[in-house]
Amino acid sequence: MDNMMTAKIIDGRKLSKEINHATAKRVQQLNQNHIFPKLVVVLVGEDPGSQLYVRMKNRKAKKLGIQSDVKHLPDDTSEDTVLKLIDRYNQDNSIDGILVQSPLPEQINEDHVISRIDPEKDADGASPFNVGRLAINDEGSYPIACTARGIMTMFKQYQISLKGKNALVIGRSKIVGRPMVNLLMNENAQVTNINKFANDTSAYTRKADIIISATGKCHLLNKNNVKPGAIIIDVGQNRDENDKLVGDADFDDLSSIASYITPVPGGVGPMTIATLMEQTVEDAVRRHK
Amino acid sequence: MDNMMTAKIIDGRKLSKEINHATAKRVQQLNQNHIFPKLVVVLVGEDPGSQLYVRMKNRKAKKLGIQSDVKHLPDDTSEDTVLKLIDRYNQDNSIDGILVQSPLPEQINEDHVISRIDPEKDADGASPFNVGRLAINDEGSYPIACTARGIMTMFKQYQISLKGKNALVIGRSKIVGRPMVNLLMNENAQVTNINKFANDTSAYTRKADIIISATGKCHLLNKNNVKPGAIIIDVGQNRDENDKLVGDADFDDLSSIASYITPVPGGVGPMTIATLMEQTVEDAVRRHK
Repeated sequence: MDNMMTAKIIDGRKLSKEINHATAKRVQQLNQNHIFPKLVVVLVGEDPGSQLYVRMKNRKAKKLGIQSDVKHLPDDTSEDTVLKLIDRYNQDNSIDGILVQSPLPEQINEDHVISRIDPEKDADGASPFNVGRLAINDEGSYPIACTARGIMTMFKQYQISLKGKNALVIGRSKIVGRPMVNLLMNENAQVTNINKFANDTSAYTRKADIIISATGKCHLLNKNNVKPGAIIIDVGQNRDENDKLVGDADFDDLSSIASYITPVPGGVGPMTIATLMEQTVEDAVRRHK
Repeated sequence: MDNMMTAKIIDGRKLSKEINHATAKRVQQLNQNHIFPKLVVVLVGEDPGSQLYVRMKNRKAKKLGIQSDVKHLPDDTSEDTVLKLIDRYNQDNSIDGILVQSPLPEQINEDHVISRIDPEKDADGASPFNVGRLAINDEGSYPIACTARGIMTMFKQYQISLKGKNALVIGRSKIVGRPMVNLLMNENAQVTNINKFANDTSAYTRKADIIISATGKCHLLNKNNVKPGAIIIDVGQNRDENDKLVGDADFDDLSSIASYITPVPGGVGPMTIATLMEQTVEDAVRRHK
């Protein structure tokens, strides 16, 4: 391998703009056929990060012509109240996509709430039914966890082949690590998932052709534990010692030896919301078929 | 590691008998409360292997006091007919467990049929909703693919700790490989899944602390590619050159270097039906709560 190589930057900002552009166009066409895709986001409590994300999603939806409502409930809302709200949205024929912002307050069991969403209105690919379809590699069309699907879109757009590759997924969250493992398996990769109980993370990272990292640890991946030519997908969103937004990878270090790398910010980040919008519109299309 | 070690044999025959004994006892208790667990198995076509399996399941159910019906449909049955049958079983309150024997004839889409089964009556853990619950590590109680759950029962009974271990799953079927990956991830193992597109299988097998193999290749695992002290779970059911039933592992070779190994026959095999019976009764218990 050539140590002098410069990695190709996977430009998530540009790619997400293209997806959003296509989504907006599709919404216009649907509107002409009297179909008006609509998303509702349920936010419980006052978590500032969640409030920010929900505002961003709401704003982006409106910008693309998707009807969007935010239901903001107080921190002490009961599980039963949320379940009944979901039931109401499930029955409301004007709603195509339902998203419950995570995390939920302690008194609400997230699994119960997510399981209640009609799989046909699941904008986030979080419903067990849709997660299961992915996990059995069902050939049909269904929503998938947005960040994970956004990463697959990156591979496709940059013509990165996965078949037979040694792919490493670091982290096993419901929204990134777990769906990533299934998506990569479905694309014929050899897939390893490691978590915080791994004795020696570097023993795994050194052998990987592709690394998808979602750990929240600055500089976890660097020249010393990544092989030249590897493809680095960085899902981390961390603050370094200078309070600068960085990922799990040492970008300066790795951009000289990786073959592809996603920057932070401007990499995986923008793909999540773009995919959420894409899936809301796909839900609408499937529901009106 | 000591090359002179002799592997402990994981005795699936004995363990499955214990499970069956507990299941029979539980059925008796339920009967006293006027609950009569009932399984229906749907068999389409004349595949001799499937017919044998269905007979074995039916016989075992009856032996344990579980009511059991087999619905045998002709090879040219339409998908719609099977879907309507499933709908009827879903509505029939006397039925607790529904199992559709795989494979189905070409004209029937297996995903459609399996998705139609009420997740509460899914004896096989095949319904996407239940697969998804496993894939998000839902804490509730739900059926899981029987062979994979049977293997987890083995780990538990033999007090084999999975946390942090380097576990390798060879194969990615819906009934073994895929659920195994999720079960191992949920138990904090570091999990690798490889398939037929792996360039060098031995590079993976050599590093594994635990190998679960479901490939159908005789002698795939042997002294040359398994590390001393590894734990070998052999899901293979193959005929060797002398028409003898063997697994994916060279048992004679590995029983001298592995720490634990499952024989073929008498290892994983009997666990599948025992787990199916266990889950049918669990379905009944959950439904009558």
